[in-house]
Amino acid sequence: MPEPGAKHEYIVGVDLGGTKILAGVFTQQLKCLGRSKASTKAQRGSEVVIERIAHCVMDAVDECDLDLKQIRGIGLGAPGAVDSETGRVIFAPNLGWEDKPIKKDLEKLLGVPIFLENDGNICTLGVYHAELEAKPKSMVGIFLGTGIGGGLMLDGKLYTGFNRTAGEIGHMVIQVGGPKCGCGNRGCFEAVAGRQALFRKIQAAVKEGQKTLLTEMLGENLSDMRSGDLRKAIRRGDKFVDQVVEEAAEYTGVAVANLINIFNPEVVVLGGGVIDALEDEMMAIIIETAHDYALSGTDKGIEIRASKLGDDAGIVGAAVLARRETK
Amino acid sequence: MPEPGAKHEYIVGVDLGGTKILAGVFTQQLKCLGRSKASTKAQRGSEVVIERIAHCVMDAVDECDLDLKQIRGIGLGAPGAVDSETGRVIFAPNLGWEDKPIKKDLEKLLGVPIFLENDGNICTLGVYHAELEAKPKSMVGIFLGTGIGGGLMLDGKLYTGFNRTAGEIGHMVIQVGGPKCGCGNRGCFEAVAGRQALFRKIQAAVKEGQKTLLTEMLGENLSDMRSGDLRKAIRRGDKFVDQVVEEAAEYTGVAVANLINIFNPEVVVLGGGVIDALEDEMMAIIIETAHDYALSGTDKGIEIRASKLGDDAGIVGAAVLARRETK
Repeated sequence: MPEPGAKHEYIVGVDLGGTKILAGVFTQQLKCLGRSKASTKAQRGSEVVIERIAHCVMDAVDECDLDLKQIRGIGLGAPGAVDSETGRVIFAPNLGWEDKPIKKDLEKLLGVPIFLENDGNICTLGVYHAELEAKPKSMVGIFLGTGIGGGLMLDGKLYTGFNRTAGEIGHMVIQVGGPKCGCGNRGCFEAVAGRQALFRKIQAAVKEGQKTLLTEMLGENLSDMRSGDLRKAIRRGDKFVDQVVEEAAEYTGVAVANLINIFNPEVVVLGGGVIDALEDEMMAIIIETAHDYALSGTDKGIEIRASKLGDDAGIVGAAVLARRETK
Repeated sequence: MPEPGAKHEYIVGVDLGGTKILAGVFTQQLKCLGRSKASTKAQRGSEVVIERIAHCVMDAVDECDLDLKQIRGIGLGAPGAVDSETGRVIFAPNLGWEDKPIKKDLEKLLGVPIFLENDGNICTLGVYHAELEAKPKSMVGIFLGTGIGGGLMLDGKLYTGFNRTAGEIGHMVIQVGGPKCGCGNRGCFEAVAGRQALFRKIQAAVKEGQKTLLTEMLGENLSDMRSGDLRKAIRRGDKFVDQVVEEAAEYTGVAVANLINIFNPEVVVLGGGVIDALEDEMMAIIIETAHDYALSGTDKGIEIRASKLGDDAGIVGAAVLARRETK
């Protein structure tokens, strides 16, 4: 329990995703004291989403019997291209956002300093510090959720590049002329292996008469489908869903190989909701395909693993950011 | 003219390509005193190629009225995955080499210290120092020759990664299931936009009855085709060759966008024989496609340019390496 008189001792990490918002309250030692969750409701517009983030933070703080006045800073991971210096989300196709001043808006609602970073970078930061204990010299994080985010660690720091947007691996094209992506292009990694891509592929096949256990489980419209439903269907013997997930794992393996060929990191960590739900179904295929496609000799000794942090990677990483910025 | 009594004052840079070997003799100030060129003749096996490199170096040194005894060190750029610490070419599909101890063999033939690096890294080093005056914080070099090599500069140094193989961008898959690559995979950047890929595409189309000015210029077998022949055919109005080159430029633009999304460098420089010969035909398309495919906001202010060094990028970069290692 936090001491009642303690002030500005705590930090909050927020993970804003295309589907849900997570908030966690942390000590300076990154111990999680409590958390809260809300659906994003992106379709209601950015103003509503920003209010929902503020409520989610307040709920998490209240859950720990704390007050906002005791919060030193809030780290926030947001999807898409973000400008962390001005605190704006520049372009987030999965939210339908362009140029939203989220830092300013949230600071007005909460009265606590907000530190913004791309969600892929944030999750990478979380995995690197909380799971790998900041040991590898270099690391790539790949997070398969609604979309696909990523981040690069180099010499213990996030590598962000010239426009601070490095690590946008979800929009690496791996299939020129392939399926349409939310960003407007075709054949992005996200468009062939992100959750939305998988769900669309399944829904389209069902419309064309494909039989699957998913319709028995969720109804003909497959409404409220989750990654866990795919796991259940596969474990009950659904060959069609198995094939769709296997293909996504192969595409992911190709993406991992590309990153090994280009950036040659010491460790590649995969995470996000899709990997959490389908680790047993996907990881072996991802690792095998990555080694097949990495140029001979480039992948020697490189570790490819699934994150153990699950959903917490984002809030832990956001807390690491807030701790760093309020030191 | 070099002073006759000067000893160990000079350095040699060698660029070993799939088609030709270039060697240049340089002063410590990177002034080129003389050069030599030979065809690689990879089909004759690695022993012959290594002897040809040694002869090419001796010819360049002789051309400057110098003696090998006056050479401080020799930098060597070789294609494929190389281990610069042990001086071995690990895997070079365009030469048909696996695990060749080229440093040891050449030191035996020449009696001068040899410093080995991947040719894409070497060309990147050359462009960064001799053309960009070591100014950008980060840079990606992309070199389209027989194959496609590349390199990453970060904070003034070559970024080589965990296995010292970073920057193998020619084997980034951009078209899963696409054309077969020399590395054994399908759909690599090199397999859709390298010179060998273009030539094979043209040869296959001609076999199937495609009309082109190239057969008038070079005969039905299109033997000894060079990138410059494609330029000549396009300028004489050959729509088919124009289309093939345009497609390669589009694929290259996609690859540039991928690198901007992932690594977000300050400058992207394109070079190599294909770009040298077809700069006017390709660069505008490469730049336009790269901006189309880069995620909105990630490409702001990033310069995409063709190298002015032409064929010299490799020998200059190799000289930079030798100078650094013999200081």
